[in-house]
Amino acid sequence: RVAVVGARGAVGREILNLLEERAFPLSELRLYSSARSAGRRVSFRGEELVFEELPESGDLQADIVFSSAGGSISRKHAWDWANAGATVIDNTSAWRLDDRVPLVVPEVNADAAREHNGIIANPNCSTIIALMALAPLHRAFGLQRATVATYQAVSGAGAAGVTELEQQSRAVLAGEPAETSVFQHVIAFNLFSHDSEVGEDGYNEEERKLLLESRKILAAPELRISATCVRVPVFRAHSEAIHAEFAQEVTPEMAREVLGAAAGVKLVDDPASNSFPMPITASGQDDVLVGRIRQDSSRPGSIALFVAGDQVRKGAALNAVQIAELFS
Amino acid sequence: RVAVVGARGAVGREILNLLEERAFPLSELRLYSSARSAGRRVSFRGEELVFEELPESGDLQADIVFSSAGGSISRKHAWDWANAGATVIDNTSAWRLDDRVPLVVPEVNADAAREHNGIIANPNCSTIIALMALAPLHRAFGLQRATVATYQAVSGAGAAGVTELEQQSRAVLAGEPAETSVFQHVIAFNLFSHDSEVGEDGYNEEERKLLLESRKILAAPELRISATCVRVPVFRAHSEAIHAEFAQEVTPEMAREVLGAAAGVKLVDDPASNSFPMPITASGQDDVLVGRIRQDSSRPGSIALFVAGDQVRKGAALNAVQIAELFS
Repeated sequence: RVAVVGARGAVGREILNLLEERAFPLSELRLYSSARSAGRRVSFRGEELVFEELPESGDLQADIVFSSAGGSISRKHAWDWANAGATVIDNTSAWRLDDRVPLVVPEVNADAAREHNGIIANPNCSTIIALMALAPLHRAFGLQRATVATYQAVSGAGAAGVTELEQQSRAVLAGEPAETSVFQHVIAFNLFSHDSEVGEDGYNEEERKLLLESRKILAAPELRISATCVRVPVFRAHSEAIHAEFAQEVTPEMAREVLGAAAGVKLVDDPASNSFPMPITASGQDDVLVGRIRQDSSRPGSIALFVAGDQVRKGAALNAVQIAELFS
Repeated sequence: RVAVVGARGAVGREILNLLEERAFPLSELRLYSSARSAGRRVSFRGEELVFEELPESGDLQADIVFSSAGGSISRKHAWDWANAGATVIDNTSAWRLDDRVPLVVPEVNADAAREHNGIIANPNCSTIIALMALAPLHRAFGLQRATVATYQAVSGAGAAGVTELEQQSRAVLAGEPAETSVFQHVIAFNLFSHDSEVGEDGYNEEERKLLLESRKILAAPELRISATCVRVPVFRAHSEAIHAEFAQEVTPEMAREVLGAAAGVKLVDDPASNSFPMPITASGQDDVLVGRIRQDSSRPGSIALFVAGDQVRKGAALNAVQIAELFS
C-alpha cells in the first residue's frame, strides 16, 4: 500500500511515472493533493485514480508514503504517518539533517536506509547528482575537499519554474519585458545566484545543503566542500563543475576506472568528438552523466570533472523510488 | 589615424561604438571588412563611413590598427602593419603568448603596453573578466591558486552565436527541432563544455588560455589555475565562479576592501536582497561586477567569489580601446 503526498507536483508526477515504468509492486495507490486539485483524475496502469485531499488524521493506512508536498506538510505529518506504521520517504528538506532520520542515496548508503525509524530523507537534488560521482571516488580514494559550481535547471523550483522560463523566453524573443513571479530575477537568457536564503557566512541554503548533506551521506564529518549554486535557463537537468582533492594522489585513469564501474553513472567523456555531459542528454535518463575527467592543472593528484543529471528523476523522484525499492 | 580591421564583426562594431562614445581623438578612421561587405556604409559621429576591402599590402597608413578579423588575418598581416609604423591592438589569439608581444589589461599591466614592439595583444574575454577581480587581490595578497567555472555567453562566438541562440530558442518553444550551425551542440535551454579543441591533458583551448594568459598578464609564472569553461544560453555577458587561494590568509572583509577600491570593478554583493552579479545587469556596462565574496568554506583563509562582465565590451572591444587610450 503506497501513498504519494503532493502527487500533482513535478516530483509527485514523476514518482507516479516511475512506479509505473519500474513496475513497483503495490496493491493500493492513494494520491494526495491540495484541496483545490482533489477530485481530479489520473491514469495509472490502465486504471483511473482520483486525487484526494490530505486527511488531517495521522494514519494514511499505507506501508510507504512518498512525501513531496513541501517542508511544512512533512514537518507536521511525517512522524504521525511513521508512527502509524508507514515508512515515509521524505522529499523535502524537513528532516534531512535530523539524527533520527537516515539521508539516503541508494547507490551510496543503502545500509543507512535499512536502519530507519520510520522516516528516510531524500537528499537535495544538487547533492545527489554530485555524490553519484563523488561517492565512488570517496570510497576508493578518500575525498577530502571539493569545490563545486552548479548550473541548476528551473525544474528545481517545480513546474511553475519551468513555465516561468518558457513564458519569459517568449517575452524576451518578442522584445517584451520578462515578468517575474516564481524567481526574484529574470531567468530567461540570464542566470543568477541560487535564490535561497544567504547565511552569515555568505553561503546560501542550497550551498549549505551540498556541504552538510554530503557529510551525512558519506559519513564523513570532516569533509570540506565549498559550492557556488547558480540557476541557469535550462529546463530540467542540473550540471556541476567539480574540483576534488583526495587523501591520496589520484590520476584521471584511476578516477575513470572507478566511475566507469559505478552504479548509476554513465561516462560521457570523449574529447575527440567534444562529447561531454549536457543537460539535454541527461534529461529523462536514470544515470548521472560524468565527463571532463582530468587532472586538476592547479593541483597535481587532484581531479576535475563535470556531471549532469536529471533533477526531477535521479535528483528527486527516482532516488525516492529507489529507496522504496530497498523495502519491496 | 585609426583603422579597424573586421569592423563589421560583433567586436568591430562595438569598437566603433566605443570610439564614438568615449570621444576617442582621431583624425581619420578607416574600416576594413570582408570583400562581401565592402561598399556598405555606417554612420560615425554624424559622418557616413564606407567599409573597404582589406588591402593585401602591409601598410594601412594608420597609427593605431584594431585587428578583429580573426587569427589568420592577424597572423598574416599584424607584423607588416606594425613595421609600417602602426601600433596594432590585436583582438585575436594569434600573438597573445608571443614573447615579443605584451598582453594587456590596462587596469592590471598598463606598463607592459608601453614597452610594445608594434603589437599589443588583447586577452581572451574569460581571462580579462576573471583578472579584473583576481589581479587586485593578487597585488594585495599574492594569488597562488584558483579554480574557475565559467558561464559563457554566446556572443563569444560572434554575432552568429547570438543569432543561433535566438533561432534555436524560438524553435524549441514552438516544439520544433533546434538546428545547429555555429555551435556543435544545441545551446537553447542547454549548456555544454566550451567548443574549443581539447588537449592531451583534458583541458580545452579556452581553459588553457585562462591559465597561460593569466600567468603572463600577472607576470606570475608559478600561478596555478584550473578552469572549466562552459557555454550557457545567455546573450552577451560571461559569469565565473572562482575559488582563490593566496600566499597569506585573506578574510572576506580584506577582499571586499581591495575590490571596492579597484578600477573597473563594481561590487554587487547584497545578501539581504539577494543581489549579486548577473549577465543581464553586466551587459552594456564597462565595469566587471563582483559579488558573493565569502570565505571558502572548504579552505579557511581562501576566498570564493562570483563575477560577471560584458563579454563584447570589457571582454573585448572596451579593453582594446582602453589600450589605445594609453597612447592617445
